[in-house]
Amino acid sequence: MAKLTEHIEIGPTDLLPRLKDNGYDNERVQRRREWIEKKCGAEMPHIGGQGWDFESTRGNIENPIGIAQIPMGVAGPVLVHGQHAQGIFYVPMATTEGALIRSYERGMVALTKSGGAQTAVASDENQTAPSFFFKDVQSAAEFPAWIESKLHDLQALVATTTSHGKLRNLKCYPTGRQVIVNLGFGIGDAQGMNMIVRATEAVCLWIKEHYPIENYFLFSGMCGEKRASGFIMSRGKGKRVTAGALLTHEVLRLYLHVTADQLFRVWQSTVQGNIQAGAIGYNGHASNGLTAIFIATGQDVANVVNSSCSMTTFEPHPDGIYASVTLSALSVATVGGGTALPTPREALRIMDCVGTGKAAKLAEIVAAAILGGEVSMGAAIASQEFVGAHERYGRNRPK
Amino acid sequence: MAKLTEHIEIGPTDLLPRLKDNGYDNERVQRRREWIEKKCGAEMPHIGGQGWDFESTRGNIENPIGIAQIPMGVAGPVLVHGQHAQGIFYVPMATTEGALIRSYERGMVALTKSGGAQTAVASDENQTAPSFFFKDVQSAAEFPAWIESKLHDLQALVATTTSHGKLRNLKCYPTGRQVIVNLGFGIGDAQGMNMIVRATEAVCLWIKEHYPIENYFLFSGMCGEKRASGFIMSRGKGKRVTAGALLTHEVLRLYLHVTADQLFRVWQSTVQGNIQAGAIGYNGHASNGLTAIFIATGQDVANVVNSSCSMTTFEPHPDGIYASVTLSALSVATVGGGTALPTPREALRIMDCVGTGKAAKLAEIVAAAILGGEVSMGAAIASQEFVGAHERYGRNRPK
Amino acid sequence: MAKLTEHIEIGPTDLLPRLKDNGYDNERVQRRREWIEKKCGAEMPHIGGQGWDFESTRGNIENPIGIAQIPMGVAGPVLVHGQHAQGIFYVPMATTEGALIRSYERGMVALTKSGGAQTAVASDENQTAPSFFFKDVQSAAEFPAWIESKLHDLQALVATTTSHGKLRNLKCYPTGRQVIVNLGFGIGDAQGMNMIVRATEAVCLWIKEHYPIENYFLFSGMCGEKRASGFIMSRGKGKRVTAGALLTHEVLRLYLHVTADQLFRVWQSTVQGNIQAGAIGYNGHASNGLTAIFIATGQDVANVVNSSCSMTTFEPHPDGIYASVTLSALSVATVGGGTALPTPREALRIMDCVGTGKAAKLAEIVAAAILGGEVSMGAAIASQEFVGAHERYGRNRPK
Amino acid sequence: MAKLTEHIEIGPTDLLPRLKDNGYDNERVQRRREWIEKKCGAEMPHIGGQGWDFESTRGNIENPIGIAQIPMGVAGPVLVHGQHAQGIFYVPMATTEGALIRSYERGMVALTKSGGAQTAVASDENQTAPSFFFKDVQSAAEFPAWIESKLHDLQALVATTTSHGKLRNLKCYPTGRQVIVNLGFGIGDAQGMNMIVRATEAVCLWIKEHYPIENYFLFSGMCGEKRASGFIMSRGKGKRVTAGALLTHEVLRLYLHVTADQLFRVWQSTVQGNIQAGAIGYNGHASNGLTAIFIATGQDVANVVNSSCSMTTFEPHPDGIYASVTLSALSVATVGGGTALPTPREALRIMDCVGTGKAAKLAEIVAAAILGGEVSMGAAIASQEFVGAHERYGRNRPK
Repeated sequence: MAKLTEHIEIGPTDLLPRLKDNGYDNERVQRRREWIEKKCGAEMPHIGGQGWDFESTRGNIENPIGIAQIPMGVAGPVLVHGQHAQGIFYVPMATTEGALIRSYERGMVALTKSGGAQTAVASDENQTAPSFFFKDVQSAAEFPAWIESKLHDLQALVATTTSHGKLRNLKCYPTGRQVIVNLGFGIGDAQGMNMIVRATEAVCLWIKEHYPIENYFLFSGMCGEKRASGFIMSRGKGKRVTAGALLTHEVLRLYLHVTADQLFRVWQSTVQGNIQAGAIGYNGHASNGLTAIFIATGQDVANVVNSSCSMTTFEPHPDGIYASVTLSALSVATVGGGTALPTPREALRIMDCVGTGKAAKLAEIVAAAILGGEVSMGAAIASQEFVGAHERYGRNRPK
Repeated sequence: MAKLTEHIEIGPTDLLPRLKDNGYDNERVQRRREWIEKKCGAEMPHIGGQGWDFESTRGNIENPIGIAQIPMGVAGPVLVHGQHAQGIFYVPMATTEGALIRSYERGMVALTKSGGAQTAVASDENQTAPSFFFKDVQSAAEFPAWIESKLHDLQALVATTTSHGKLRNLKCYPTGRQVIVNLGFGIGDAQGMNMIVRATEAVCLWIKEHYPIENYFLFSGMCGEKRASGFIMSRGKGKRVTAGALLTHEVLRLYLHVTADQLFRVWQSTVQGNIQAGAIGYNGHASNGLTAIFIATGQDVANVVNSSCSMTTFEPHPDGIYASVTLSALSVATVGGGTALPTPREALRIMDCVGTGKAAKLAEIVAAAILGGEVSMGAAIASQEFVGAHERYGRNRPK
Repeated sequence: MAKLTEHIEIGPTDLLPRLKDNGYDNERVQRRREWIEKKCGAEMPHIGGQGWDFESTRGNIENPIGIAQIPMGVAGPVLVHGQHAQGIFYVPMATTEGALIRSYERGMVALTKSGGAQTAVASDENQTAPSFFFKDVQSAAEFPAWIESKLHDLQALVATTTSHGKLRNLKCYPTGRQVIVNLGFGIGDAQGMNMIVRATEAVCLWIKEHYPIENYFLFSGMCGEKRASGFIMSRGKGKRVTAGALLTHEVLRLYLHVTADQLFRVWQSTVQGNIQAGAIGYNGHASNGLTAIFIATGQDVANVVNSSCSMTTFEPHPDGIYASVTLSALSVATVGGGTALPTPREALRIMDCVGTGKAAKLAEIVAAAILGGEVSMGAAIASQEFVGAHERYGRNRPK
Repeated sequence: MAKLTEHIEIGPTDLLPRLKDNGYDNERVQRRREWIEKKCGAEMPHIGGQGWDFESTRGNIENPIGIAQIPMGVAGPVLVHGQHAQGIFYVPMATTEGALIRSYERGMVALTKSGGAQTAVASDENQTAPSFFFKDVQSAAEFPAWIESKLHDLQALVATTTSHGKLRNLKCYPTGRQVIVNLGFGIGDAQGMNMIVRATEAVCLWIKEHYPIENYFLFSGMCGEKRASGFIMSRGKGKRVTAGALLTHEVLRLYLHVTADQLFRVWQSTVQGNIQAGAIGYNGHASNGLTAIFIATGQDVANVVNSSCSMTTFEPHPDGIYASVTLSALSVATVGGGTALPTPREALRIMDCVGTGKAAKLAEIVAAAILGGEVSMGAAIASQEFVGAHERYGRNRPK
């Protein structure tokens, strides 16, 4: 084992090269890549890419050296009867996990054959949760009433920092000398964190000016960005969206090779397993589908952690089984972030989800797709076909 | 809103085209892509890619239409003194979140300037948790002693299904009439789920043959694959790996623009926020770095959900602050899955982490990188520079 | 092991005797007790009690056979500077855990010597969360807007069922075809569940009459009554109350035998342990003090489970250490339940907390007492005196 | 609001009187009580008690002033077919929550009429989790292998501190520079914490002597004593015990006034509610029954928090519904603690659970009783009789 006493000299030549204007033109991206190739003895013909204009990645990445390429496939069709999405959709998914797309496709077709999935967006609000510090508990206790009375001022202030983000509400959580203020924002079609964090900084500075706080931090960790928590299971974050469908006995039998009872038993058994594990939420493999769609469509993929805080249900029904997923904290965007990059934009276009006014639609399609995956996974476990399917499609293919 | 009564006819022409041998040759990938383009009115010049041999994606994806491209940059250097990783590393990260790489880079350099990060792998074991069903509680209660006595038989059985996966232990969790059996496996350098799920199926079938169970399911949800739970925080899943470093007062002040006390206060405050939120684990933004590295290196990106179940600490120290991250359930591989695809393989090569015998090394580099990100994020909050940095590098750049 | 096939005949003589008017007069309580004594071969001279009028327990218990007796002691003094409690208090605690009262007493005195604890009640609201079922996701999605528009009707309705409980707000959580409606109630000085559950039934019946629901259940489990959850950590249940105090270096050294740094290290270390365990909230042993006070004062003791969902902090401070507890979901009452029984009423009187208008005061005293226990426990761990104290006072006393 | 600046003088006369030999003789208990009466203007004729020998409470309480009295009733009969408990039992419960005993009684009779409940103890082990601190991550990483190799030495050491507690195993959780060592102990028929904490101190001191640790703390918070966590849901603490029974259609209809389907729907709906809440475990109201039995039988009542970490299941079955509860972390004792006090001992005698060799039996009776409560609560919700029952029996009785 290397010992700390073993001196390793780090010199200026070990730091990544600082290039003019941060080095986004293709020539400088290449120079940086070559620097790494030399330093690490690695060649990168594929990462180097072809035909990219790296200048377009400014604002999305630093120290660019090229592109990561993940195979993209498509699953579907899924018939959606939503508030925002209506019709038949094909869903682009980028993944390296064999059998994943086949599984989602199978579930989506099963939903479609059963008459489609209904979808609805119950709430749509992102949030930040800065914390404010006071001398003592008494001082902290006086703050909530004051800040609640200033909501209109803060709304006006936020409006000066962003035209898309709207401060809608605030709620205080005093804890010892610290008061966490959860700020709920309308965010239009963006993921919105940058926008609302900037607005939140303005809010913090305004408060600092108008109220005798000792200090503040922009983040308390409570808002649930990119983490799993009981708070976002109930409070939500981003979009709370539900998809549901009645799978008929015929579809279950002919297409998924299970009975309603078998499928239901898997649900019940795995709910118990998840509860025994002290898990957040319950689902079969929501994170699989979310990740594949997020990579394909230029979402902030780390948001899969909060977005997969969800609840899948399978309910016995006289005509089959009623299946649903409720994603409590789905972060999807159709503007901003990586959505305008070349392949994401094309992928979004497959679902007619490019640009303004499309985020709720995308959320509903995502929910329907995830529901497809839950149905298919449950059926594969129930019918004992899981391993067989992975042998056929997965990376464990026989040589 | 679309009503379910509104009939939408799904015909055979809506199903994705079934192509010969599942359609992995480039011509058929193109044909499928064109089918989607026509169906959805979307063009996909970039997704189409250039110079890919899609045949190589067989086993990683179905219904391929092309490739997703995510910008890749590099962060570092980070000096690592580990059990498996020793030296200076540059870490490839694929992301569309502006400022993310700059943030990680800053933290890694801070670690390096402080003498580097120590790393260690405490355990390395993946797991499955099939469930077995019995007539009643008495019957279920008799099963654990029997199955525990058969560990050697099961180990021999597993050895016939995989040469890489080794069954190491099993533990029973009886719940009502159901007994969940958690099977711990050595997995070599793979992520291992396909391998051990296949082995688990063999185990289940063997049990069914040798013991009067009523039924079994391959998955109980307890194993923690791609989900966050209290169970994997303690039991672990994959690699439990720690990175730690003493950040000196000088580095804190000159390079991160904070005092030890300020940085520590952010830790304390955000721990409280996370606990108030009922979060699993505690970290600043571990999922950000994990996601970016996972996309770059061909990991199963949905494993970020379990991999981010972690614990970040900042402890006051006479000479500065001692920072650490402990990832309880890190899923990283250097063989199998997407690791052999063109850009992942090149990215792994940057860290000399290609192939057999490198997974533990990769785990330690990842831990050191994540530690860099935690330090940088904490410092940005403490110094109130967070928004400024995002304005400079992030997607909210002024027009 | 007994087998189910072994027939055990249960006859009418095995059922507990049904006595006139449910048997609350002392003679019939005695008759029931004697029936059990005979049936079980057990004598109960102490449970029989002396001088009780069991008629007064009607409404608090069924099938009474006597009384449980738990030793009661007193801890204090604790000086409280609260919104509702001001002055020096002595706190009655009923327990059988040796050293517990000494530990709380020590902490309370330490707070008092440091100038007392500040306390504040941040919110005061109990809740129920009935669930409503619909045909499908679309139908469920339409319900929240309707029910939110009926808040005034529901408030009027609730007012006809209770003069103490006030419906304040409602919030919908659609999940699949089910919509959970969380109803927030002002509850005066009562624990309030019976009162608000009765009101909730009226609400459910009214909804059933006015809206095409398929079914409803009075409870969804979401409200957090007598269970631990992330939801009540943030949303709260009952009273959210904080106590905090600055413990001076002198008090720490002379009275608690620790330095500020040692005490803080215990906090940091045990926070990490709790997070690793996937615990709800963080505290040292809040449930100990809550249980002892709840038994002494006639609270619904099972509410300790929700009431102990809390957050203890120890913050380094130039003058010592700032300690606080925030109980997110404290259920305490000064009217109703067991509070009017003989010994609880006397115990409440010790703190001048009998009857109407005293519940918030009691909440603050409880918070201050719990803070005392947290400080004392932390110090005992830090100073390595924990076992010694238990040897001296606890049940492990040397013979 | 009282201000801290308002000086309140605390003098020696405010401290509780220190009495000879800690004041456990009846005269000094009375003197202490009178001191409080005078100080607080409260009279305590009932707390004073009659016929108690307070000397017997030494080791269970400090500063005794008298006794808390909680009404005790009895529920049953419940027929149990267990590994340790076999036959018909009546269960003493002390509570002030009206309708609670009636509810448990109803459920127990329903189980009995269905042929009884099966019970089994799956594991029986208490634990402590001290933490050890090291200079850095590398030093911490070397500790687990060493300590694991010393298990036999530690077992021998523990045997010198207690004849009842046996050290069975240890498991290390390194986190940053800290290593938590979870020590599993056999504890005989005691709750065992005092015994094993004392043994743990010996272990810590031995380690300190034999290994270069920087420091240790006796508690890390991980062991789960008196708190709810994902860790104890899976790892357990104390006894992991299951009770299950098949409730026939006839019993459901005639006695519980529900169909199997209705009862099952309540289960499903409330599981979803609990998961949405981010709850630990799932049950209807296990804490109610546990608390009432714990108070009656002299258990450490604060252990209800960990003991209620449990899993209730209702499974559709051709002949009715199969119901079960699995208590993952039940803390019950038949020796030590408060179990030898007068009313607890009598209450334990009702179930023939006094003294050595009876703790596992008590655990099984408790599990069967809790199952009765779960069944009854579920049925009351399903049949919409909940409020009616509480009106009839509860404290909200009409005047």
